[in-house]
Amino acid sequence: MCGIFGIFSLSGEQVAKKIYYGLFSLQHRGQEGAGIAVSDFQNIYHYKNIGLVTEVFNDEILQNLIGFLGIGHVRYSTTGGKAVENCQPFVVRSSFGNIAIAHNGDLLNSEELRIELEKRGHIFTSSTDSEVIAQLLVRELLKTKDVIEAIKKTLKRLVGAYSLLIMINDRIFAIRDPWGFKPLCLGRDEDNIYVSSEDCALSTLNANFVRDVEPGEIVEISKDGIEVYKIENDEEYFINIEGEKVYRKAATCMFEYVYFARPDSTIDGISVYKVRKNIGRELAKEHPVDADLVSPIPDSGNTFALGYSESSKIPYCEGLMKNKYVGRTFILPSQTERELAVRLKLSPIKAVLEGKRVVLVDDSIVRGTTSRRIVEMVRKAGAKEVHLRIGCPKIISPCYYGIDMPTKRELIASNKDIEKIRKEIGADSLGYISLEGLIKAIGRKDLCLACLTGKYPTRTNFKKVMKYN
Amino acid sequence: MCGIFGIFSLSGEQVAKKIYYGLFSLQHRGQEGAGIAVSDFQNIYHYKNIGLVTEVFNDEILQNLIGFLGIGHVRYSTTGGKAVENCQPFVVRSSFGNIAIAHNGDLLNSEELRIELEKRGHIFTSSTDSEVIAQLLVRELLKTKDVIEAIKKTLKRLVGAYSLLIMINDRIFAIRDPWGFKPLCLGRDEDNIYVSSEDCALSTLNANFVRDVEPGEIVEISKDGIEVYKIENDEEYFINIEGEKVYRKAATCMFEYVYFARPDSTIDGISVYKVRKNIGRELAKEHPVDADLVSPIPDSGNTFALGYSESSKIPYCEGLMKNKYVGRTFILPSQTERELAVRLKLSPIKAVLEGKRVVLVDDSIVRGTTSRRIVEMVRKAGAKEVHLRIGCPKIISPCYYGIDMPTKRELIASNKDIEKIRKEIGADSLGYISLEGLIKAIGRKDLCLACLTGKYPTRTNFKKVMKYN
Amino acid sequence: MCGIFGIFSLSGEQVAKKIYYGLFSLQHRGQEGAGIAVSDFQNIYHYKNIGLVTEVFNDEILQNLIGFLGIGHVRYSTTGGKAVENCQPFVVRSSFGNIAIAHNGDLLNSEELRIELEKRGHIFTSSTDSEVIAQLLVRELLKTKDVIEAIKKTLKRLVGAYSLLIMINDRIFAIRDPWGFKPLCLGRDEDNIYVSSEDCALSTLNANFVRDVEPGEIVEISKDGIEVYKIENDEEYFINIEGEKVYRKAATCMFEYVYFARPDSTIDGISVYKVRKNIGRELAKEHPVDADLVSPIPDSGNTFALGYSESSKIPYCEGLMKNKYVGRTFILPSQTERELAVRLKLSPIKAVLEGKRVVLVDDSIVRGTTSRRIVEMVRKAGAKEVHLRIGCPKIISPCYYGIDMPTKRELIASNKDIEKIRKEIGADSLGYISLEGLIKAIGRKDLCLACLTGKYPTRTNFKKVMKYN
Amino acid sequence: MCGIFGIFSLSGEQVAKKIYYGLFSLQHRGQEGAGIAVSDFQNIYHYKNIGLVTEVFNDEILQNLIGFLGIGHVRYSTTGGKAVENCQPFVVRSSFGNIAIAHNGDLLNSEELRIELEKRGHIFTSSTDSEVIAQLLVRELLKTKDVIEAIKKTLKRLVGAYSLLIMINDRIFAIRDPWGFKPLCLGRDEDNIYVSSEDCALSTLNANFVRDVEPGEIVEISKDGIEVYKIENDEEYFINIEGEKVYRKAATCMFEYVYFARPDSTIDGISVYKVRKNIGRELAKEHPVDADLVSPIPDSGNTFALGYSESSKIPYCEGLMKNKYVGRTFILPSQTERELAVRLKLSPIKAVLEGKRVVLVDDSIVRGTTSRRIVEMVRKAGAKEVHLRIGCPKIISPCYYGIDMPTKRELIASNKDIEKIRKEIGADSLGYISLEGLIKAIGRKDLCLACLTGKYPTRTNFKKVMKYN
Repeated sequence: MCGIFGIFSLSGEQVAKKIYYGLFSLQHRGQEGAGIAVSDFQNIYHYKNIGLVTEVFNDEILQNLIGFLGIGHVRYSTTGGKAVENCQPFVVRSSFGNIAIAHNGDLLNSEELRIELEKRGHIFTSSTDSEVIAQLLVRELLKTKDVIEAIKKTLKRLVGAYSLLIMINDRIFAIRDPWGFKPLCLGRDEDNIYVSSEDCALSTLNANFVRDVEPGEIVEISKDGIEVYKIENDEEYFINIEGEKVYRKAATCMFEYVYFARPDSTIDGISVYKVRKNIGRELAKEHPVDADLVSPIPDSGNTFALGYSESSKIPYCEGLMKNKYVGRTFILPSQTERELAVRLKLSPIKAVLEGKRVVLVDDSIVRGTTSRRIVEMVRKAGAKEVHLRIGCPKIISPCYYGIDMPTKRELIASNKDIEKIRKEIGADSLGYISLEGLIKAIGRKDLCLACLTGKYPTRTNFKKVMKYN
Repeated sequence: MCGIFGIFSLSGEQVAKKIYYGLFSLQHRGQEGAGIAVSDFQNIYHYKNIGLVTEVFNDEILQNLIGFLGIGHVRYSTTGGKAVENCQPFVVRSSFGNIAIAHNGDLLNSEELRIELEKRGHIFTSSTDSEVIAQLLVRELLKTKDVIEAIKKTLKRLVGAYSLLIMINDRIFAIRDPWGFKPLCLGRDEDNIYVSSEDCALSTLNANFVRDVEPGEIVEISKDGIEVYKIENDEEYFINIEGEKVYRKAATCMFEYVYFARPDSTIDGISVYKVRKNIGRELAKEHPVDADLVSPIPDSGNTFALGYSESSKIPYCEGLMKNKYVGRTFILPSQTERELAVRLKLSPIKAVLEGKRVVLVDDSIVRGTTSRRIVEMVRKAGAKEVHLRIGCPKIISPCYYGIDMPTKRELIASNKDIEKIRKEIGADSLGYISLEGLIKAIGRKDLCLACLTGKYPTRTNFKKVMKYN
Repeated sequence: MCGIFGIFSLSGEQVAKKIYYGLFSLQHRGQEGAGIAVSDFQNIYHYKNIGLVTEVFNDEILQNLIGFLGIGHVRYSTTGGKAVENCQPFVVRSSFGNIAIAHNGDLLNSEELRIELEKRGHIFTSSTDSEVIAQLLVRELLKTKDVIEAIKKTLKRLVGAYSLLIMINDRIFAIRDPWGFKPLCLGRDEDNIYVSSEDCALSTLNANFVRDVEPGEIVEISKDGIEVYKIENDEEYFINIEGEKVYRKAATCMFEYVYFARPDSTIDGISVYKVRKNIGRELAKEHPVDADLVSPIPDSGNTFALGYSESSKIPYCEGLMKNKYVGRTFILPSQTERELAVRLKLSPIKAVLEGKRVVLVDDSIVRGTTSRRIVEMVRKAGAKEVHLRIGCPKIISPCYYGIDMPTKRELIASNKDIEKIRKEIGADSLGYISLEGLIKAIGRKDLCLACLTGKYPTRTNFKKVMKYN
Repeated sequence: MCGIFGIFSLSGEQVAKKIYYGLFSLQHRGQEGAGIAVSDFQNIYHYKNIGLVTEVFNDEILQNLIGFLGIGHVRYSTTGGKAVENCQPFVVRSSFGNIAIAHNGDLLNSEELRIELEKRGHIFTSSTDSEVIAQLLVRELLKTKDVIEAIKKTLKRLVGAYSLLIMINDRIFAIRDPWGFKPLCLGRDEDNIYVSSEDCALSTLNANFVRDVEPGEIVEISKDGIEVYKIENDEEYFINIEGEKVYRKAATCMFEYVYFARPDSTIDGISVYKVRKNIGRELAKEHPVDADLVSPIPDSGNTFALGYSESSKIPYCEGLMKNKYVGRTFILPSQTERELAVRLKLSPIKAVLEGKRVVLVDDSIVRGTTSRRIVEMVRKAGAKEVHLRIGCPKIISPCYYGIDMPTKRELIASNKDIEKIRKEIGADSLGYISLEGLIKAIGRKDLCLACLTGKYPTRTNFKKVMKYN
């Protein structure tokens, strides 16, 4: 997924530390790598590395990043290994000065563009889409002196998801693709203009939310404030795999609401927390059950469970505790102790569950094995019945726009019907929210539901060559 | 506080890795240091260091700890600096073989005992009570060949809190002081006998809870199973500071229920989760208010808030989100940005709070400054009214039994009346649970309430010389 | 300076670990960063980072570098900060497959080439010459299908020092510039073909030295063995700053012999050890003195001193000991204790020096301050007279070919005459070897002596813009 | 072996950083661990850990060690594993205040004393002799108020090697055992009194050497300067294993001169450098050979080789180079590449050795395998003949006084005659220095030669139980 964050200091103060805090608030969008690039109007200084924001940066590094405007990135890897080269912002030197790019999303035609550029003699040092965008942009800048024109020409070539920050010399361009797949919003305080993947990072820095960047907008941020341009996109419609004409329209990723964004964020005017609670309520209506307690599988199921409880009038409880010390250096139990691995992370509260009919609520079922062990654990803690409710419909198609779903999430769902899954998991009943229920809960229709329906809002017939390294 | 954990493998298997997982489940009881000592019946091998369990140990270290019985410790420092010397288990060589000791609690007379031993020519390499206990024990062993006799004689000398694991050669002694200040319980599975500060660690290892070690019990664990002895304590009563005769009776620390223990633990037959929910309910009765929402200050206020909501019928919500990436390597905001420090940890959900009258529930008020900032933050997020409810009565006296309260907790409460605190914090109303409410919520009377009442269950007139190092 | 190393395994075995050992033997050529790139004929896998070879690599990293041919690099930074981006090999993806480049030397016209490429729309992600070479190469490859042709065309553009390894898919090209500034040699054993900056790395791996790569050669290494091509270079002569016609001829850096290379290496058929001993002998002839002892300033002065002793018949001794534990994590003495810093590294042996007239021999005088302190220290240890002899003539001009001399070395020499330097240093006499003496000692005339004479073997009138980052 | 260092600041300045530099200069005496303890007259603050001096300490740690007098230790482990507990100084609290002890040497009767103390109820937390000494000392202090008296009584009990620093409150006692096994000397500058294992550390700190602590001296260092007392030792003679009466006399370890001490140190008035050169000269006389070159095996053979060359008139050369980057994180070659391991550390200089008859000089032969590989390597580099000369006689008996010889050094020598060793190593001739030659070279007779002769200067019939942990 990735998170992006940028600041322009109108009062000429250092921005690196503020970007650090901004990225820290977006850490949930990517834990693999982090980077910051700042500009003093002439030169760009940057630092990036593998790890959490707090691991990558220290005081000394931040103090060496001297600049009055800057952009940052937290990385969630969908492709490529753990290489510093693939961390962002991607910074290059060109005849138009230094350029830094931070990208959230996945392009579908990046491999095609890459091959095209390679044929013209360009070389690539990373497997990021940002490098493709940088090369395209510089080519366009060569043809026209107008930066806006060059950016527009570049964006016209891109198909897929991109919330994008481009820093050139003394300005930042904040861009959201015409489909609006990924969120992006603007903030302000007295001295700074902000741009962030989510408004939760604005709140942290005590900045005011101004508005979302709209799908198809290019927002130029400079000492003169904000100027807005529109992406020109030829591709008003395309013919999909079934031969239908599909017109382009905004298609924001539903998974941002369901799982990815922080509950205290608001995307395109809709509170993530409220969506999750609505989903819980819808679930209760669609899959009611006679039970004594509703418990989330923490932390992802918390708000769904609250909504389910509210609607069903079944009391909410914390039936499972999460061990907050689970981290990366943990010595994992051996293969034969897989059960232990689950118990080290989650513990049932016997005093709550004993003798009760329990509704467990989560956002999704990954492989099914963890769910099976949780259900078993809850039963062993004394629950009489265990009913599982899932806040996201069954995922049946891969995501091409930057979410690592097909391989990691819902594997169990793609091949089996619900009754079969229920049996495997060992729940007394199992209910997924319906597509209609989800749309209703979110309260908007211009969503990308491709992973749930197989209907993609963009052309998908691109050469998808394995990305290198 | 500290946490202690021990295993005796009846089937002769290695125990180090299991102790590692046990300590991991007790990590909430101490984050400063960790250690494990194991015995192969003849030698004791041990390793301890500063840091979290997952930081102190790795695969190689665990594999070098070869033994069929063993004890472990997680350290929460009340006294002394961050020195490896003060980590536990404390391991010594004596004429009776190797002895390892892990201790939870604080002795009141350890300084007196230490001086007495020093006068007899003993020297001390650490500032732990364990070393005092070890020296006393070896002295008694010299006088009698009987280990149980020696342990009894040793314990007779101790005044204060001690849940204690003593490993000598081929056996472990699990001991709980006559007051039962700190918890300690026994577990079993087919192949092992367990002892643990809390039963949550037994659940993690899929062992069955057998029973609590009772106040005043010495439980000997060996290849022959379990043998139980009683601590002989002269001090049936003492004259307290006000000249009253105080008879010794069980006095389990109420703070274990309120804050310290994990919610999925059960102490002396009483579920910690249930106590916290009861407290919430009592709070609702004692300090009702006309409001729209009840929100915890996460994570410590969660279960209290749930109880408050249940009793008051005011809907429960998650008004504040906790950033789970806050860790030790964090670059702190400068002095002038203290507010930012709070916002980096906690974020209000505007969509939930806007226009609402909110009851915030927490376990305690520390200095007041954090509470003030949270109340302010919640107001800024749009709350019309903010009512604060606290799940623990005002703390007015220091704890001598191992909880670091007087300096860290409730500072604001000790000097001011509630109305003054309310004003400082800026809440619309403020309510602490009453002493009676607390006792009722816990459901037992044999509690240590010294920090709330100033009435101590033991003599306190000991020389409290500054501990060295 | 940097060191480069490559292997082609004819028997299809993994090469990464051998490259690791090769780089370890070249560690003296660069301590700032290290990297290895290997090819399995199709893909290139690489890893590089800041630090010593032994710090950058571990077993796991090496095992993930799966390939049958590969190249490595140790970095000595002349330009740019400590950035991973500037470590080598530089690896790119192009339409001709993956390309990895490792470079030793500095190009004079890289900035000009960079600007030219930027004007054509190319972008740069590092400040290395390798990236410039890579872009040029790929442009040429576009025009011709012949790799050799493209390499020749590319090299024609380069002015300056380059010993170069280029790995493309299934072959390595080992290249030495027409001037032969930096060394490069070939090795063989039964199963592998080797290429290395110095033959000392071949000895370490028990490979046989085959021959030096000659100035102007392109050696193609593949499964078919070795094929040799010639660099075509137009620039047969150039007009230097004084209007003279200067014909191109081999010009190997004299500093390789004097300081840089390892004494057990042989460059272009001449033993480095022998050169240093010869220099010592010449020094004795040019600057004889009546003294009791000759002592090196260790380790750089060792072999010079041996030669001086041999020729002068003044006994050789170890008058100063070097502390071998000096490393990077050392807590430096404060400003006022600079003297201490010298004494922590070097200690005089009083028993040797007392009452003696001592000749100290070193390769160069850096700032003069260290030399002054050493002379003082030796006097304090009891020496009656201290005579300083320097194995390299006074450096008066900057090096443009990759040695960081102008700023680091011989600062004192550039502005002052010898008598003035002697006074500042406090020696009883001071003698630098003469230019003629140096040439005689090395035994070849085709040397680059630019830093000693100001006469450069290449054009130097290039735009030298500050390299970015 | 270990190294010890102490400072008393008469001007009341902080001493921790100076001790750090002192220990750094003694690093060659122990690389396993390091520690510093300082006193502000009342409290002792200390820090110690596994690792090199530069790894154990950083600026922050040093700044927290606030004191006007202090002692330090570098550890070389002869017994026990790598445990922080066994690092020194050993610091305890007693009824006489804090006591810190740093010890160089091994006691023969420490196990007996330990058992005796254990029988009296003492316990031990480490396997160091220092803890035994501390316990004895505190027992004696109990009996008498006089510190000097107590120290004398304590020392009377010790048999074996001890150069000892004992810091109590406001004074340091510097002690050297009656045999004078290990060196210890005093230094001064305007503001401080120093005590150090070797005077090289005094030179580093620019302090003046005052005198050696004589065998059997107790030097008290306080604000009043220096006061000297004598160790009272009953044991004027003992009956050795062969029934002979052996009178106690000074017996300084010959290995300090041969291998252990730094060449720039002077022990008991005799320069270590000069001894090594003398040994080389003696070797040349005892084992002359017709050869072209003398080369040391660096670094240990350097000075021996210089002496051999001087006496034999065969020219000295550097036939082998040592790779100075070999360190701890090195990835070792596999079992089958043992040869490579030697070549990574040492490289022959072909240009020097080719066609020559070479005398190689070293201090000792360890297992023989490394020597065999070096001889082979030198032959392969072209040497016509290889003659090996060893600067220490064959070691035939274990050392009980703190040098880890029996297991690590001269294994090959203990079982075989010289001709057999020569054959195994593959040298053309092999010569060890004789016992008489060694004594002559050192120039004193009061040496401990036990490892060479089997005649021990102390009783050795002690219970040597395996030290624990």
